[in-house]
Amino acid sequence: MGARPRGVRDPDPALRRDPGGRGAGDTARQKGGFIGRSRRRRGGDVLRLGARAGTGGRPALPPLPRPPHLVPPDPERLNEFDVIRRLSGRLPAPPAEVVVPIGDDCAVLRLGDGLWVAAADMLVEGRHFEASWATPRDVGFKAVAVNASDVAAMGGTPRFVLASGGGADPETTLGCMEGLFEACEEFGAYPLGGDTTGSPQLVVDVAILGELRGPPVLRSGARAGDLLAVTGELGASAAGLLALMGGDDRERLVRKHLRPEPRVLAGRAAARLGARAMIDLSDGLASDVRHVSERSGVRCCVDLGLLPVADDAREYVSSLGRDPEMLAATGGEDYELLISAPEGVMEALAEESDVPVTVVGEVVPGDGVVFLRDGEPVGDLSGWDHFRKG
Amino acid sequence: MGARPRGVRDPDPALRRDPGGRGAGDTARQKGGFIGRSRRRRGGDVLRLGARAGTGGRPALPPLPRPPHLVPPDPERLNEFDVIRRLSGRLPAPPAEVVVPIGDDCAVLRLGDGLWVAAADMLVEGRHFEASWATPRDVGFKAVAVNASDVAAMGGTPRFVLASGGGADPETTLGCMEGLFEACEEFGAYPLGGDTTGSPQLVVDVAILGELRGPPVLRSGARAGDLLAVTGELGASAAGLLALMGGDDRERLVRKHLRPEPRVLAGRAAARLGARAMIDLSDGLASDVRHVSERSGVRCCVDLGLLPVADDAREYVSSLGRDPEMLAATGGEDYELLISAPEGVMEALAEESDVPVTVVGEVVPGDGVVFLRDGEPVGDLSGWDHFRKG
Repeated sequence: MGARPRGVRDPDPALRRDPGGRGAGDTARQKGGFIGRSRRRRGGDVLRLGARAGTGGRPALPPLPRPPHLVPPDPERLNEFDVIRRLSGRLPAPPAEVVVPIGDDCAVLRLGDGLWVAAADMLVEGRHFEASWATPRDVGFKAVAVNASDVAAMGGTPRFVLASGGGADPETTLGCMEGLFEACEEFGAYPLGGDTTGSPQLVVDVAILGELRGPPVLRSGARAGDLLAVTGELGASAAGLLALMGGDDRERLVRKHLRPEPRVLAGRAAARLGARAMIDLSDGLASDVRHVSERSGVRCCVDLGLLPVADDAREYVSSLGRDPEMLAATGGEDYELLISAPEGVMEALAEESDVPVTVVGEVVPGDGVVFLRDGEPVGDLSGWDHFRKG
Repeated sequence: MGARPRGVRDPDPALRRDPGGRGAGDTARQKGGFIGRSRRRRGGDVLRLGARAGTGGRPALPPLPRPPHLVPPDPERLNEFDVIRRLSGRLPAPPAEVVVPIGDDCAVLRLGDGLWVAAADMLVEGRHFEASWATPRDVGFKAVAVNASDVAAMGGTPRFVLASGGGADPETTLGCMEGLFEACEEFGAYPLGGDTTGSPQLVVDVAILGELRGPPVLRSGARAGDLLAVTGELGASAAGLLALMGGDDRERLVRKHLRPEPRVLAGRAAARLGARAMIDLSDGLASDVRHVSERSGVRCCVDLGLLPVADDAREYVSSLGRDPEMLAATGGEDYELLISAPEGVMEALAEESDVPVTVVGEVVPGDGVVFLRDGEPVGDLSGWDHFRKG
């Protein structure tokens, strides 16, 4: 083990992972430039490398309207991160059951002889979705899916859900709860209870309890020499959001936005095979990889040319005059997993995963995140506004 | 044990309670009329009987405005109970860990060698409170308190909280989360995490995990011969709500409404001493006692003259031309406990409880709920509109 997540007590045996995984012999690979190697690796399909080169041309189309939650913050005011920062300083010492407190995808609890993960996520109309885009059933479904994704990112299995929420009329509330039940059934979680209520805007909050069969995969375990890979595809959800905003008929992309599929099997396989760090891609790769870098005390290098952007997303986003790779890196809400693991682990994972696993970069000594495109650094993308053309 | 809660699998050893408690010899007492006996018992103060006779006079004052959540439902539409009924028919078979599924104050889980209770409750601005009445800090505090009350009603100890919510600006969100933290500290729960978000209306949802040291006290365990008692006082919260609606300065009553105190110690003591059934008073005694009656398959008789209404609540409610006992029976949001237990258990509980325990009625063979006043039945109060003068 190396660095521990900040704010965590002395190492807990629950967190002990095989330090070398299957790729223990790969530390010598830290030296070479990662892009060249990644590009070479792309030739083989062991890791199902699905990425292709950027498209380049960007016709000057008018900017689309931005959803309300993307309005830039007033610098005079607190933002959400200020709120979290102010609160996290006031946390009391955690009780003995808390193996990992707030700060990762889930908190980790030892209850009896078992390890459990717990998280909650809320969706609010006008903030996370518009009623004209998403049915109440979609919203209920997504509320469970995004929480199951947090469980997947720890290597856990969704087990129990508490769900609260409702809308302006009982039909809306019923639709939302039906979507919740549908997702619970699909992802194997049992709805323990919760609260139905009226609300001027549809709002739904899901708290989830997931089970671990081994140590959790934290954000803090990435080590120089690891590869960075993502499951599935990137950018489709943001492309679907653009289609919803523009009223365009892009059914598959819209579905990727409204009904994300948490990568539970892949997450569990990654944990079992020895992945060192994992996070789910909710805010966008550019933001989320930063958490891995900061928590692990390493530099994460990502090649935009390697991002797995599906053909239809690439074509649609390009047709809007937007940059598919930039959208894939910053668009968010893909609910795919970003995994840091030695090469041998990644190969085994690609072999048995139910979804594609695409190497998009690597971990090197140092700090910060570097995005490269055609071999050139493109700077920090974490604040890049993917709904404004640059 | 007698009847089992509906929808529950075969008896689980976790639910085995001492069938007689300390009052095993009291079954002969089922015969006499309960009012006479309750009145006689009122002479002694073993059970700290705090009730007094109703005041009677009701001057004709204009009705107060009714809060938005009390607007009568459109009979053509689904209501919240329809929603719950429709959903509960679709619940899958619970997994092995679920000792008690949805339908009591909390669900009960066996995790490893421990028993845990889980519940969630959401508060929405304009529905459960008005921003002009309650600070964000009050709202956050109350969200934890009402969930801790559900844990108390199972005989459990609040342990872990997941909290999601937020308001129109980060200051509102911060205030709400500070109230959440304050309540967590006061009630001994640890904030595991959650989600802060923006929302046009302030909304907050708390999911709670509580620990049991013995079998849970369900709504289904009441038996003929039990006494019915409540902790603390009734009606103060509804009186506080009336004061808030009317802009009246009634600080103590308003505080009872905004900052309820969950009866965790009393609930735990009741469980340990052998209480047979318990529920927390959120919707009002008249509604909540019906759940005990229906789940237990017994008749519950309550004497309005015995309800513990504090002097200031009685005086204020009377001054508005309202009936203090009716408000105490139907007003809701007291977050006191209603306990069904043999007399011996109730005496022991009154002895060691940190709050008054007042006998308000008894359990007899039969079904339904009977409210009596001056020895006369007053009919079913569960639909009584406590904000309209009758």
